[in-house]
Amino acid sequence: MENNNRRSFIKKAAIGGLMAVSIPEILSASMMSSVMKKNSLTSDNIILFQGDSITDAGRNRNDNSFNNAGALGSGYPMLAGAELLEKHAALNLRVFNKGVSGNKVFQLAERWDADCLSIKPDILSILIGVNDIWHKLEGNYNGTIDIYRHDYYALLERTKKALPNVKLIICEPFAVPGIKAVDDRWYPEFYGYQKAAREIAAQFNATFIPYQKIYDKAIKRAPGAYWTGDGVHPTLAGAQLMAQAWVTAVKA
Amino acid sequence: MENNNRRSFIKKAAIGGLMAVSIPEILSASMMSSVMKKNSLTSDNIILFQGDSITDAGRNRNDNSFNNAGALGSGYPMLAGAELLEKHAALNLRVFNKGVSGNKVFQLAERWDADCLSIKPDILSILIGVNDIWHKLEGNYNGTIDIYRHDYYALLERTKKALPNVKLIICEPFAVPGIKAVDDRWYPEFYGYQKAAREIAAQFNATFIPYQKIYDKAIKRAPGAYWTGDGVHPTLAGAQLMAQAWVTAVKA
Repeated sequence: MENNNRRSFIKKAAIGGLMAVSIPEILSASMMSSVMKKNSLTSDNIILFQGDSITDAGRNRNDNSFNNAGALGSGYPMLAGAELLEKHAALNLRVFNKGVSGNKVFQLAERWDADCLSIKPDILSILIGVNDIWHKLEGNYNGTIDIYRHDYYALLERTKKALPNVKLIICEPFAVPGIKAVDDRWYPEFYGYQKAAREIAAQFNATFIPYQKIYDKAIKRAPGAYWTGDGVHPTLAGAQLMAQAWVTAVKA
Repeated sequence: MENNNRRSFIKKAAIGGLMAVSIPEILSASMMSSVMKKNSLTSDNIILFQGDSITDAGRNRNDNSFNNAGALGSGYPMLAGAELLEKHAALNLRVFNKGVSGNKVFQLAERWDADCLSIKPDILSILIGVNDIWHKLEGNYNGTIDIYRHDYYALLERTKKALPNVKLIICEPFAVPGIKAVDDRWYPEFYGYQKAAREIAAQFNATFIPYQKIYDKAIKRAPGAYWTGDGVHPTLAGAQLMAQAWVTAVKA
């Protein structure tokens, strides 16, 4: 993102109001990372998607390979991966998905050596947070926003220590209010989780993908249920929405 | 495609040689259909992908639904479908996949009432032909190019009679020579199947997607095995290559 573009975005946003801007503009305003600003994928880059069920998306967890739909599942990592692999065929990219359904941040930490550090990603994308509130509302977990923030921070410190050159992509946890699982009990608490993710992205100079804004904008084009069946898990259309935003944000 | 663009393509192709042109130019030269030239998807359109294992791509054949990865598999129909559903969210499209692994043309005919006509597609995309030669080379089938052409013609006549307004997309059968299954025995006979598909597309005023040219061009960017594991079945990168070409060809 050029500085000029960023300035003109800020100006436009100030004049026109934030709601009128396009997805690329939303993304550009959220690009915190000077690293990713000059991001370009280079030869043999390893890209790793991490997270919960939204990332997992039915992948075959016994398949430790990469670049194929079995190992990548049927969600945004596979769709983004397909686009990257086709577009950058000469780069010999390796795209991995190690999302696991149901995970909260502390569960990422438990499997981080095997499922992240040993893979040595050049680009690490994390989407985590919705279960930290959802499982609590269901009575199965006792977390708080502070625990989420603390665990997430510790996870990224550990990651940066082991992989000092890794480029981080932090994806905003999102929900579509009024669709099945997502009711009033989620708010305003869920905003706190989203704020924590945003702040952590800034602290670690990560690229932040504002998925809540992206869904908020999408539901003006089609009803919430078109993008997510239960308010949390994307449909195929929702997964493609996320993949497009990811590829745009990373300029990959 | 504007007439001007088409003329300038023909001129450029004559001067520069066909190999130098881009994928959109290859596609524009292959657009036979006046219907599809002014194609625009409209509300509630039903899109059906038909074919063999390349189209099937591991779909759940017990799932008769649409617009989801289970029913669409992990190949080009799912990837093209994801793009269409995201891009045209307001149109309420329904995307189906009824490809069946191993099929030759006569096997499409056997299940055509249930797996095509009853679905009443507005846009019908067919990719068939590779098994017509492959199974013969393996000694499991006794077909010829003439049988392929005859059966394919009859299938489309039957389709047009039942669904006079259907927009047809005929996908060229393709193979990547030198990769595993695809050896010298395929040639020159396979060219005859490709020629038959191209001629049938012209006869039925269908949009023709020249997948052989698209793969021929792709293997200049990355080795054949990057796009197809066995010379016939696409990798995820190959499936995305096909999906992109499909969406571009259909201007969808």
